Amino acid sequence: SSEATNFDRIPAADSLALDPKAAYLHFTSNETIHGVEFQSEPVAPEGVPLVCDMSSNFVSKAVDISKYGLIYAGAQKNAGPAGVTLVILREDLLERTPSNLPVMLDYKVQVGKASMHNTPPCFAIYIVGLVLQWLLDQGGLEVIARRNAVKAEMLYKTIDESGGFYRGHALPEARSKMNVPFRMPSEELEKLFCKEADKEGLIGLKGHRSVGGLRASIYNAVTETSVKVLTEFMKEFQKKYG
Amino acid sequence: SSEATNFDRIPAADSLALDPKAAYLHFTSNETIHGVEFQSEPVAPEGVPLVCDMSSNFVSKAVDISKYGLIYAGAQKNAGPAGVTLVILREDLLERTPSNLPVMLDYKVQVGKASMHNTPPCFAIYIVGLVLQWLLDQGGLEVIARRNAVKAEMLYKTIDESGGFYRGHALPEARSKMNVPFRMPSEELEKLFCKEADKEGLIGLKGHRSVGGLRASIYNAVTETSVKVLTEFMKEFQKKYG
Repeated sequence: SSEATNFDRIPAADSLALDPKAAYLHFTSNETIHGVEFQSEPVAPEGVPLVCDMSSNFVSKAVDISKYGLIYAGAQKNAGPAGVTLVILREDLLERTPSNLPVMLDYKVQVGKASMHNTPPCFAIYIVGLVLQWLLDQGGLEVIARRNAVKAEMLYKTIDESGGFYRGHALPEARSKMNVPFRMPSEELEKLFCKEADKEGLIGLKGHRSVGGLRASIYNAVTETSVKVLTEFMKEFQKKYG
Repeated sequence: SSEATNFDRIPAADSLALDPKAAYLHFTSNETIHGVEFQSEPVAPEGVPLVCDMSSNFVSKAVDISKYGLIYAGAQKNAGPAGVTLVILREDLLERTPSNLPVMLDYKVQVGKASMHNTPPCFAIYIVGLVLQWLLDQGGLEVIARRNAVKAEMLYKTIDESGGFYRGHALPEARSKMNVPFRMPSEELEKLFCKEADKEGLIGLKGHRSVGGLRASIYNAVTETSVKVLTEFMKEFQKKYG
C-alpha cells in the first residue's frame, strides 16, 4: 500500500510480497480518487492467475489479455451506461468455481447460458455495442490510447508549469491518464474555480468527496478540444487569481 | 405444485403444507410461461414473513404491502428497462441478514448506502421514475388494474367463444392478467397465425420456447386498443382458417 504517502504512487514491483501459492493476484489498474494508474501489469508468480478490476480504464488503451486470468469492468467509465459489467475470463478458471456459490455470482452459470441466465440489461448492452463500434470507427484502441495520452499530457503540463498554483497529487510515474486530481492554494480558490468553470460549461470538476480538491476525469468520451478548453481556463484563472 | 396438470392452476390454499417455523414463505405472484396468477396472496403462518417475486405483475394492480416481509421485482415487465430490480423490505428483516453474505447480495449494505453502495444503474432508474410518473398521471394503480382487467377479459372471451379453435392453458380461476398463452388446432396454424399477425403489426406472439404455442403478453404498456386489434385479428383468422 502507498497509504503512508496518501496513495500517490503504485507500489514498486520488488516491494510486493507475492505468494507463489496464491489463488490469484488481484489489482485495480486505475484508481479514480487519487488518480494513480498501473503503467503495466504486475507480474504474477508462475501459475497464479492475474485478476484485474479494469472498470476505470477499460478500453482506454490496448491490453494484452493473454496475461490475465480474469478481467472485469463496470461499463460506466469508457464503455457504456452504469448497469452492465464486462467480464473476460480464461476458460480453465471456470473449473475452479466453488459449488456453493450463489447463482448470481457464478460465472459458470453465465457462461453456460451465454450471459442470459436471467433477462440481461438489454439497453445497457446495446449502448455498449454502439460505443465499441464508435471505438472501432475512431481507429481502435491504439488511436484512442494516443488521444488519451495527449489529453493527459496537456493537463499535467498545465499543472506542472503553474509554479505550484496547481498541485497534482500522484507522482509523475504513477499518473493516471483517466483521472487528474489537483489542489490549489486554498479551498476558497478551489470553490471559486469550480464556480467559474461551471459558467464556462466545464462541469464535474469537484474532487471525490473523500479527498476534496479538484479532479478532471478525461475518459474516452472527453475530446482533446474539451481538455484544451480546460487548460486555457486554468491558465486564465491563474492569471486572474494567482 | 400443479405439475401433474402442466401448471394450469394455483395450488389450493388448503393443499399447502405450510411450516409454522419456516424462515419465510416464498411465492411468485404471476407465472409468465403458463399464464397463471395468484388472485390473492397466500396466507403465511403467524410470524412467517411472506416473500414474493413480483417481477411480472408488479404495479399491474394495487397490493397491500403490509402483508409482505419482502417484495422484489425486476423492472422489465411493467416498471422499466431490464437491469434494475425494485425491493420493498420490512426493516426488521434486515436484522436477520447473515454476516457472511457476499456484499452484492446483502440488503443491509444497500440500505446503509441508500442503494448506492456501487454506482447504480442510473439510466434504468431514471426510466423507472418516468414510468411511475406516467402511472400516477394515468390515475394510479386502481385505474391501471381496471384497464388490465378489461384487456384480459377481452382476450379470454375471444378464446372462450372460439368453440375450441383457440384453447387457453390456465384454468379460468387462475388466469393471468399479464400473460395469455393459448394453443390452436395445429402447429402449422400457430405458425401461420404468427406470420399473418406479424404483417398486421401484431408482434411477439410466439409462446415461450419451453412450451410452444402462442402467448399474448399484455403488460401495462399494452393499450386496450392494441388488445382489441388482436382479438379482431383472431376472429378474422378463425373465419378464414377455422
